[in-house]
Amino acid sequence: MNSPVDPNLGGGSLLIAWQLKDKNVLIVGGGEVASQRVESILVTDANIVILCPENGVSPRTRRFIELYPDRISYYDRLFTGPDELNNMDMVLTAIDDNDRSREIVELCRKARVPVNAADIPDLCDFYFGAQVRDGPLQIMISTNGQGPRLSALIKQKIQGSLTGREGEAIRKVGELRQLLRVYEPGVGGPSGRKRMKWMTQLCNQWDMEEFALMDDVMMKRLMEEGWAKERTPSFEELGGKRPDSRTTKMTPLITSWSTSLVLPSLSFIAGLLVASLFSLPRRR
Amino acid sequence: MNSPVDPNLGGGSLLIAWQLKDKNVLIVGGGEVASQRVESILVTDANIVILCPENGVSPRTRRFIELYPDRISYYDRLFTGPDELNNMDMVLTAIDDNDRSREIVELCRKARVPVNAADIPDLCDFYFGAQVRDGPLQIMISTNGQGPRLSALIKQKIQGSLTGREGEAIRKVGELRQLLRVYEPGVGGPSGRKRMKWMTQLCNQWDMEEFALMDDVMMKRLMEEGWAKERTPSFEELGGKRPDSRTTKMTPLITSWSTSLVLPSLSFIAGLLVASLFSLPRRR
Repeated sequence: MNSPVDPNLGGGSLLIAWQLKDKNVLIVGGGEVASQRVESILVTDANIVILCPENGVSPRTRRFIELYPDRISYYDRLFTGPDELNNMDMVLTAIDDNDRSREIVELCRKARVPVNAADIPDLCDFYFGAQVRDGPLQIMISTNGQGPRLSALIKQKIQGSLTGREGEAIRKVGELRQLLRVYEPGVGGPSGRKRMKWMTQLCNQWDMEEFALMDDVMMKRLMEEGWAKERTPSFEELGGKRPDSRTTKMTPLITSWSTSLVLPSLSFIAGLLVASLFSLPRRR
Repeated sequence: MNSPVDPNLGGGSLLIAWQLKDKNVLIVGGGEVASQRVESILVTDANIVILCPENGVSPRTRRFIELYPDRISYYDRLFTGPDELNNMDMVLTAIDDNDRSREIVELCRKARVPVNAADIPDLCDFYFGAQVRDGPLQIMISTNGQGPRLSALIKQKIQGSLTGREGEAIRKVGELRQLLRVYEPGVGGPSGRKRMKWMTQLCNQWDMEEFALMDDVMMKRLMEEGWAKERTPSFEELGGKRPDSRTTKMTPLITSWSTSLVLPSLSFIAGLLVASLFSLPRRR
């Protein structure tokens, strides 16, 4: 918390997780780029309006329109004017006509609606980036418009560094935090700080896999034997067992055996045999 | 690009890189949480207004105010009313008074100014998350408000999976893309698609370290021998050398030698010796 201040900040973006549940998002265009936008917005549970003449709708955009009729309203026409922005909370353009894109962006600025114009970074209130998702866990990689293709490479590295259990661990911690709010109600302020302090302590003590394995019984015990007594018991103390600990620990063990013991042993025996072959004839 | 559509999207946020260069951001509060907000906003080159009575300003917030006098305007007072929002592009509250926070959020909604209220997720247009930064590379980890502390653990994993050369690689690719716009001008449309196709091909072919090592001479050759001839030459073809390639490739070589050859060889010799020891006495 009390990290020193950096005297050379700057040159970047503000990376944020925008909330759009039940908000309205207008997507102008229906091609391949538009289909990526549709996908990003469907994640947020927003309502989507797509404006695009029939012949410009890509197969992928069409699939989304068919699969999510409750979320997507599709209109077979071009953007007509400022009235299209009524009740809109966000606008994304994904059309080839740059002049039209600029006009739409200007209208959005006047109406104070956040807007992104595909391929025209100067006009954008915000950029998209490569994303990794695992349930409640979302990771975004932004190159600040400098190397969008490299994001894909970095995304692969990041995916490789995760176990795939992080989403489950976060889900369980989310449940625990909800339970904590039952034991200690109150939004923000001293209650919030007290909860945060205890959660921080617990997160410093338990690892990701332990959270992922936490069940309802353990959660309840954690509240009664932990929170209520102002301490943070260990995973094992609450009866937690890591069923995979033997297998995960066995794997490297076997690997190291095969190289560090088995192979040298075989070589040793081979040495014995070779030496015997040489000594036997001499004895005859 | 043509990946299949997922019929079960939802439940998440829209992760975006918000642009705030030379925009105005109001931060209400000056404590420890406010100092984290100040840091995040300084990254974006926005102008910051801080409203907080003197006695509520944390040492860290104070250091930022002192270090960035051109970027931060500090006022020793409370938030007074709707006029504070004039010309503001974003508002962040970080105060203990939840009722006051709620009032400010409501004023922001009316003025259509994006707002985040610390510790009151229901009121937020957007959430913050753990961040990793390396020059133009920014990575954000969001748990969608479910396990903010776990973000720190995931952040460590991600940092461990990166070499620290990604930012440099992105910077170089950014320069290359600017050069590309000199050879092939035009915003968006067919020119944009042609540039994107070539860049994608290059990024699929070159690795991160090769981009990081690319110099001006190589960039020019890449344009003349690559772009102009509609092909993507390799890093080596352009005279690229990886000064560290021998060391990086030696390391695993030595490791595998030591386990797969050296140790068995020693064991073999040991076998020879032991067999000899047994056979020698018999010959006497």
